[in-house]
Amino acid sequence: MSSLDGERVMDAPSPGKPHDRLAAALAGDMESVNALIRTRMASDHAPRIPEVTAHLVEAGGKRLRPMLTLATARLCGYEGSSHIRLAATVEFIHTATLLHDDVVDESAQRRGRPTANLLWDNKSSVLVGDYLFARAFQLMTETGSLRVLDILANASATIAEGEVLQMTAASDLATDESIYLKVVRGKTAALFSAATQVGGVIAGAPDAQVQALYDYGDALGIAFQIADDLLDYQGDANATGKNPGDDFRERKLTLPVIKAVARATPDERAFWSRCIEKGRQEAGDLDHALALMRRHGSFEATRADAEGWADRARAALAVLPGNDLRAMLDDLAGYVVARLA
Amino acid sequence: MSSLDGERVMDAPSPGKPHDRLAAALAGDMESVNALIRTRMASDHAPRIPEVTAHLVEAGGKRLRPMLTLATARLCGYEGSSHIRLAATVEFIHTATLLHDDVVDESAQRRGRPTANLLWDNKSSVLVGDYLFARAFQLMTETGSLRVLDILANASATIAEGEVLQMTAASDLATDESIYLKVVRGKTAALFSAATQVGGVIAGAPDAQVQALYDYGDALGIAFQIADDLLDYQGDANATGKNPGDDFRERKLTLPVIKAVARATPDERAFWSRCIEKGRQEAGDLDHALALMRRHGSFEATRADAEGWADRARAALAVLPGNDLRAMLDDLAGYVVARLA
Repeated sequence: MSSLDGERVMDAPSPGKPHDRLAAALAGDMESVNALIRTRMASDHAPRIPEVTAHLVEAGGKRLRPMLTLATARLCGYEGSSHIRLAATVEFIHTATLLHDDVVDESAQRRGRPTANLLWDNKSSVLVGDYLFARAFQLMTETGSLRVLDILANASATIAEGEVLQMTAASDLATDESIYLKVVRGKTAALFSAATQVGGVIAGAPDAQVQALYDYGDALGIAFQIADDLLDYQGDANATGKNPGDDFRERKLTLPVIKAVARATPDERAFWSRCIEKGRQEAGDLDHALALMRRHGSFEATRADAEGWADRARAALAVLPGNDLRAMLDDLAGYVVARLA
Repeated sequence: MSSLDGERVMDAPSPGKPHDRLAAALAGDMESVNALIRTRMASDHAPRIPEVTAHLVEAGGKRLRPMLTLATARLCGYEGSSHIRLAATVEFIHTATLLHDDVVDESAQRRGRPTANLLWDNKSSVLVGDYLFARAFQLMTETGSLRVLDILANASATIAEGEVLQMTAASDLATDESIYLKVVRGKTAALFSAATQVGGVIAGAPDAQVQALYDYGDALGIAFQIADDLLDYQGDANATGKNPGDDFRERKLTLPVIKAVARATPDERAFWSRCIEKGRQEAGDLDHALALMRRHGSFEATRADAEGWADRARAALAVLPGNDLRAMLDDLAGYVVARLA
């Protein structure tokens, strides 16, 4: 659960992967988005700002969220240019969230590089994040669409609520699957669903299609985060850039553990309480935790949940125009969980 | 310069003070603002949020910024209800900025209470601040005025830029009065001028009046911050709730020091460099700093600057309708600097 961006489910580009095909199909638009991002993250008054943002913005993130906005706008036949601004908005909100998450989580690695707050300081991360939020807000205001503003304002509030909820719920064994889902909707799915929904809104798509785009983004984001949380225990460190078991060491309850806690014997529950709630971890605890999760079928059940959400994402696409972009979005949902095999 | 809210220039309520007369004149509106703030800072999903915000929002701040929005809207004849939302927006942005400032500055006291990040943690301060920003953004979107959104988006970016600039400029002896002014415009005046300007915009005031309201807020904010920075060296700890010389100890260049540095002998410059740039302070340094500022007339010159900005604020009011509220805003500008006598 440590990875807000969840980029670890994707590895190095290869021509056949859905996000690479999306990137190829949207290359012209994405170039405009990147140019706009570079322009708008500059500051005449405070040169420190691009120093900090370049670290994240240029670090080769997959730009998945802005791509979703571009793809959904184009999918719905949009011919204007506001989707470029909205895609940049979404990336700025995402980057701001990463900066603030770095302050908060003391995470040691982000996208394979040291986090901003190790290179600079908490102060820079907080304030530059605020600057990017403000820039995002300016960009979306320029679209002149109050409906888009409403969607992105609501998403911003949901993201912050999810992060705060995670803070109180993450190390509490009373956190069940419904609370986990609320957290995931906030920290991950809210920006995915806003990114897909505003694409449809700016294109003037009918309400049923806009709702479908929301549903797609919501389910995709949830599948994405569940996959990310599963890979924290099962992933290959070389592919993910993370150490397996980081969430356990950071005392974060994620879905595989929640499922194991739900079936725990009194002794097992005492183990989880010591490791997660009290944080008194000893050598061998991670191995024991993995064994408990295996014993209770946590990994299979978690993977089934991720697949279920990916299926919901694909099903939502049915009412949308049946073009190439829709096929790529469909493949993308499949890909998010295919790597869990 | 440690006080973003600058409330220390105001002390306990007394009937004759301009902000108390404003509060009395706007009592009904302010009650609506307070009710809206309480409603909107709640969160169904994350009970931690109101715990943190109540600390600041209920702590008896003077609500100066929202009062400016209410006063300017009413002054321009506004009869609707959007000014309530905008006033709450302005207070949310202000509170979010305080929360993020607390993380950043490790300031030990805010409005006479322990700061949020001592009672809770940095994590809460960052995320709850983000939540308030998002809530502010929702509230202003509800007004449906793109012009208001544009003003507040720009102000938010200016605030963040000012904070980042301060971070790099505060301990650098090369910081001159023009850089100081940029920082002050960002960290303080931008929200004052946005607060006054949106009051006029929502009332549909003519452009010349909206410009005058901007000019008033800008000059008032600058006078306010300069006064605050002067009181850091000259204020009475009982009245201000701060220890004199905090800015010196925190190695923050403010206007009185900048003026003394500009006239420093080589020896004096070495003193400032050691204390501010290098941060190697010894017993007696604050007294020596005070003596240097007195010797070079820094305090008189700083006070004259504050008075000059207060005069500009009052002059800007000339084109506005000449009613009671205008008279109170005029008195308010006078009061900000009157306490420096």
